[in-house]
Amino acid sequence: MSEVQSIAIVGGTHGNELTGIQLVRHLQNSPTPYSDNFILSFILANAEAIAANVRFIDVDLNRQFHLDNLKSSNSMLYELNLAKILNQKIGPKHSPLTDLVIDIHNTTSAMGPTLIVLEDSDFYREMARYLKQHMPEANILLEDEVPYQEHPYLCTVGKRGIMLELGAQPQGVSRSDIFTQCQSMLQIILDYVDLHNKQALPSSEPVTTYRFGEVVLFPMDEEDQILGLVHPNLLDGDFQPVKINEPIFAMFDGSELLFKGDKTIYPHFVNEAAYKQSNVAFSTADKFMW
Amino acid sequence: MSEVQSIAIVGGTHGNELTGIQLVRHLQNSPTPYSDNFILSFILANAEAIAANVRFIDVDLNRQFHLDNLKSSNSMLYELNLAKILNQKIGPKHSPLTDLVIDIHNTTSAMGPTLIVLEDSDFYREMARYLKQHMPEANILLEDEVPYQEHPYLCTVGKRGIMLELGAQPQGVSRSDIFTQCQSMLQIILDYVDLHNKQALPSSEPVTTYRFGEVVLFPMDEEDQILGLVHPNLLDGDFQPVKINEPIFAMFDGSELLFKGDKTIYPHFVNEAAYKQSNVAFSTADKFMW
Repeated sequence: MSEVQSIAIVGGTHGNELTGIQLVRHLQNSPTPYSDNFILSFILANAEAIAANVRFIDVDLNRQFHLDNLKSSNSMLYELNLAKILNQKIGPKHSPLTDLVIDIHNTTSAMGPTLIVLEDSDFYREMARYLKQHMPEANILLEDEVPYQEHPYLCTVGKRGIMLELGAQPQGVSRSDIFTQCQSMLQIILDYVDLHNKQALPSSEPVTTYRFGEVVLFPMDEEDQILGLVHPNLLDGDFQPVKINEPIFAMFDGSELLFKGDKTIYPHFVNEAAYKQSNVAFSTADKFMW
Repeated sequence: MSEVQSIAIVGGTHGNELTGIQLVRHLQNSPTPYSDNFILSFILANAEAIAANVRFIDVDLNRQFHLDNLKSSNSMLYELNLAKILNQKIGPKHSPLTDLVIDIHNTTSAMGPTLIVLEDSDFYREMARYLKQHMPEANILLEDEVPYQEHPYLCTVGKRGIMLELGAQPQGVSRSDIFTQCQSMLQIILDYVDLHNKQALPSSEPVTTYRFGEVVLFPMDEEDQILGLVHPNLLDGDFQPVKINEPIFAMFDGSELLFKGDKTIYPHFVNEAAYKQSNVAFSTADKFMW
């Protein structure tokens, strides 16, 4: 397995997710312990959105890294052009300069520190195991419903790419406990990559992992008004199981809507503010030992 | 003391504070238990901001109800003109149609259900006591640093006006537990006003109350970048005491900044997302028995 030499650490892909922005700024101004081991670059991805304290200016930057988008002609949309610039800087996708892109995000849902990986391979599996060993409170989320490079995420312009997702934190807020947690998480990931390069990884144990299933929409009326809210049972407990016939929505009329699937789900991204526009209440996952 | 006949229940003064918006919509479509006792009106204050899921379009609507603003000529600013329309509809300030305005807000800080009153008088003191008796988890915040009508808040166009402030809830998110809490809080306030009208209030006990002091800014460098975050000790515990020389900021360089005042403070609006732009980290309060 090839070495990971160049690493891009990215914050501000979404301009109102402050932990990554502040951590990248801090790292830019600090002596980096790993500067001898890696070629590190620190990137604040969406400067305009950061300045405006919004998720994005025109469209979600973290959905613009489809190869089709990157090959299209210039656009009126700020983030579509920005994606092309970033693709040149840290990609380009399919023949990248960067061996690993670490993109730092926040969520308003109580997902704790979650490592999102996009491919079921040795490198990511061992990373997940190493992280969980050194940060037991971390969650592992595998989104491999499409091949790695077909994802539209910024981190996929790297040869490898992951997302660190930390919550619960409101948009436009930075919590000191989450900032510290993110620092630790990043350090553990860099430790892992260094040990991977040196072929010095300790033996690992299978790790509880959640695999993305589908999104669940709010119940809506014919005029596109929501009819209820995510049930109290699902609040502040992302990745906790919900069984068949357990309530998932508390309706404004006082009734409850029950989960009518065919197997236990593990909701996450519960009440993520950014997904309100698409009426997404939460995502589901399966659980397995990886 | 005069009767309270007309009550305006307002949501969406800030377009991304969803609890009040959804509660007003729900009440508009539901049989209202108090329709015989009061003339109730339900108002979604800032329709454009609600549609855009933002706090405001041009300027903060809840700071535009100074008498000078309301008397000024037409403006390019959407919310300044909107304030004049709302002033005619539920005010006008100084000779109002509405006896009581109840304006519902959310905060990203962990203030729980907080009743904000703007004047130290029998009516509000007894309301605070009645609320606390029926909802022990509620907090009472008195902002009487200026006379009632000199406040710039929407609710001050009513003869009397209060704000219900519920948190922690991220902007653009609606939590079912907070929605239910807001329903209960509103019900208790209406019960109180009904008993007040009937001169049938039970005897009351003094209530712990917080009186607004001042705002505390984030520590900043010369380039207007913040140098630290609100200390973990202050997170998720609004209205908990901070004593002299206790830490209030965790600096990015690893150090702590201590509180250098001359008396114990009770921080609130800790990490309120909307105050980021003004670099406000939290507000302080004194505590007293009211």
